[in-house]
Amino acid sequence: MGEDRVARAPAVGADPLTRATELAAAAVAGDRHALARLLTAIENRTPVAEAALRQLYPTGGRAHLVGITGPPGAGKSTLVAALIAEVRAAGRTVAVVAVDPSSPITGGAILGDRVRMQAYAADRDVFIRSMAARGHAGGLASTTGAACSVLDAVGFDLILVETVGTGQSEVEVASSADTTVVLEAPEMGDEVQAIKAGLLEVADLVVVNKGDRPGAQRTAAQLRAMLVAAPVVGADPADAGRPRPKRPDVLITTAATGEGVPELLAALDRHRAGLTRAPTEDGAPTAARLARADAQVRAILADRIADRLRVAPLADDAAATLRAVAEHRVDPFTAADRLLAAIGREIAS
Amino acid sequence: MGEDRVARAPAVGADPLTRATELAAAAVAGDRHALARLLTAIENRTPVAEAALRQLYPTGGRAHLVGITGPPGAGKSTLVAALIAEVRAAGRTVAVVAVDPSSPITGGAILGDRVRMQAYAADRDVFIRSMAARGHAGGLASTTGAACSVLDAVGFDLILVETVGTGQSEVEVASSADTTVVLEAPEMGDEVQAIKAGLLEVADLVVVNKGDRPGAQRTAAQLRAMLVAAPVVGADPADAGRPRPKRPDVLITTAATGEGVPELLAALDRHRAGLTRAPTEDGAPTAARLARADAQVRAILADRIADRLRVAPLADDAAATLRAVAEHRVDPFTAADRLLAAIGREIAS
Repeated sequence: MGEDRVARAPAVGADPLTRATELAAAAVAGDRHALARLLTAIENRTPVAEAALRQLYPTGGRAHLVGITGPPGAGKSTLVAALIAEVRAAGRTVAVVAVDPSSPITGGAILGDRVRMQAYAADRDVFIRSMAARGHAGGLASTTGAACSVLDAVGFDLILVETVGTGQSEVEVASSADTTVVLEAPEMGDEVQAIKAGLLEVADLVVVNKGDRPGAQRTAAQLRAMLVAAPVVGADPADAGRPRPKRPDVLITTAATGEGVPELLAALDRHRAGLTRAPTEDGAPTAARLARADAQVRAILADRIADRLRVAPLADDAAATLRAVAEHRVDPFTAADRLLAAIGREIAS
Repeated sequence: MGEDRVARAPAVGADPLTRATELAAAAVAGDRHALARLLTAIENRTPVAEAALRQLYPTGGRAHLVGITGPPGAGKSTLVAALIAEVRAAGRTVAVVAVDPSSPITGGAILGDRVRMQAYAADRDVFIRSMAARGHAGGLASTTGAACSVLDAVGFDLILVETVGTGQSEVEVASSADTTVVLEAPEMGDEVQAIKAGLLEVADLVVVNKGDRPGAQRTAAQLRAMLVAAPVVGADPADAGRPRPKRPDVLITTAATGEGVPELLAALDRHRAGLTRAPTEDGAPTAARLARADAQVRAILADRIADRLRVAPLADDAAATLRAVAEHRVDPFTAADRLLAAIGREIAS
C-alpha cells in the first residue's frame, strides 16, 4: 500500500464511528484503498477497527478460509501465487493474508506485499496483505481473525492465510481455518523433519511442493505412512462439528510451474463441500468456525480486561500488584485473583 | 524423564495441596524426579501446579534467566550444550527449558530430552527439560514462565530458555528473559535473512555461531552494520527499568568446538551485572521482570475467565453466544461485552 494510494482514499470524518461507516461502505463497494485502510486500522487496533468490524461482521460467513502453513523453505509464497492464478482463471475472487515471519515483534511486513502486489495491481479481484501482530500475546490470532472477517464481509470467495509452521501462534492461526493445508518439501533438514510430525496433526490436506525435485514421491510416501500411523484427527468430541474423521490426502505440486495446482484447488473445494454437506444433526457450525469465534471473543475479552487494568480506578492497584509479582513478594495466582476481584467489582458497579 | 524414574519418585498424598507441598519440598531439597513431576504438572495445568507455584514463587528471583533464540539451523541446541559445559566448569548450576518446535499443538517434546539428558544423567546440577504448550493462546509464555519460576525457586543459578526464532510466541518467550541472546549462522537462506531483522530488535547479545564456516566474520560485520542502522532498543519509556540503552555486542562462537563460549558466558555475566548495578532511581524491577510478571498474571486471568465461562451459571450463555458469533448473527465485540458483563456480575455476587 503506497502512501500515494492512501492519499487518494476518500475523505473521512473525524469521529471513529463515522469514519468506520464510511470506510466499511467503501470497502464493501469494492474500494481497495478503503479496504487497505481498514486492515491497517485492525493492525493498529484503533477504535475505527472495532466500529467497522461491528458493522461488517454480521454480513460475513460465506468465504472459504484456507490456512496454508509449513516450514521455512517449503515454498508457501510460491504456492500461494500459483493458487491465485488458478483461482482467477476459474473466475473467482481471492484475498491473501500473509503472516510475515520477518518481524514477529514490531512487524515490518512490507517487502513481500510490494513484490507480490505488482503482478495483480490491475486486478481488483485479488487482494494481498501482509499482517504483523504487535507485541501482545494472542495478537496474531486476533489480528488475523479480524482481517479475515473484513475480507469475508467484503465478499472474497476464497481467503488464503499463509503462516510459517514453526510458531505456536502461527500454526494456530492456520489450523483454525475451514481447511488447513500443510506444505512440505522433499528432503529438508533434520530440524524441519521434526517440525513435520507436529504439523501433520493440524492438516486437512498435505502438499509436497517442489515436486520436480528428486525424492518428492518418496517424501509423499513417507508422509502417507506417518498419517496412517497417527491418530485420526476429528475423533475428539470437541471436533463434533467436523465431518466424519478422515485422513488427509497427500498431493504433490510444483508451484513454480503450476503442476498439480488445479488438483489442489479441486481438493480444497471438495474439502469445503464436505464441511458444508455434512453438518451435525442440529446444523451447528463446524468446530473450526466455533474455534475461530471462541478465539476472537477471548482476545477481545482479554483486551477489555487489559484496558480496565490500565485506567483508573484500577491502574494504580494493578501496577503495584504487578511490581510485587516482579519482586517475588506476591505469587502470580494471588495477584490474578486480586485483580479479578477488583475487575468484577468495577464491571458490576 | 523415563517412566522408571517417575515410578521411583516419593509417594504423595491424594489432595492437590498436600501433593504440591510434598513435591515442592522434595524439589527444593534437590530431588530431580520431584522437580520433573512438578514441571509435568505445569505442562498439564493441574491443580498441583498452581498450589506448588503459590508456595515456591516467593522464594525465587535470584536466577539469571537467559533466552536463546534464532532461526532453525543456527545451532541453538549445540550452543546450549556448550554453555552447559562452560557453566559447569565454573561450578555453577544450570537448567535448560527447551521449547521444542516439533509439535506446536500437542507437544511431543521428548526426543531431544532423552538424547541431551544422557550426557548429564549423573550431574544433579544440570537439569534439561523440553516444554510444549498444549493448544491454548498464550500457553507457551504461561507454561514456560511457570517452569522458570519453579527452576528459579529450586535454586538454579542460570536458566537457559531455548526457543525457535520464527514464531511470535516463541520470540516473546525468549525476549522476556533477563538477557536475550539471538543466534545467527553464516550465510543462511533468504527467508532466514528476513527473520534476522526482526530478531535483532529483541537481542541483548548477538552471536554468530558456526564461526569456523567461511563468511562468519562477514556475517558478524553485516549484523553490526544492521544494529548501527536500527533504532536503539531501550529508548522507549516502557523500558525504563533497563540500563542505559546500548547496542548489543556481536560475538562469534563455534559451539561444536567450544570456541568463543567462555567469552559468551562472560558477556552474559556482564549483561546481568549491568541490569543489577543500574536499577532505576526508586529501585524498581527491570522492564523484563515486569513484563514477565505481567505476562504470567495476564495468562492466569485469562484462564480464570475461561474457567468461569466453562461452568454454570455462565456456560450455557457463553456457548450460545459463541455459536451466534460462529454463525455471524452476533459480532465478536458485542459477544465479548455481553460475556464480560455476565462475568462481572458473577464475580461480584
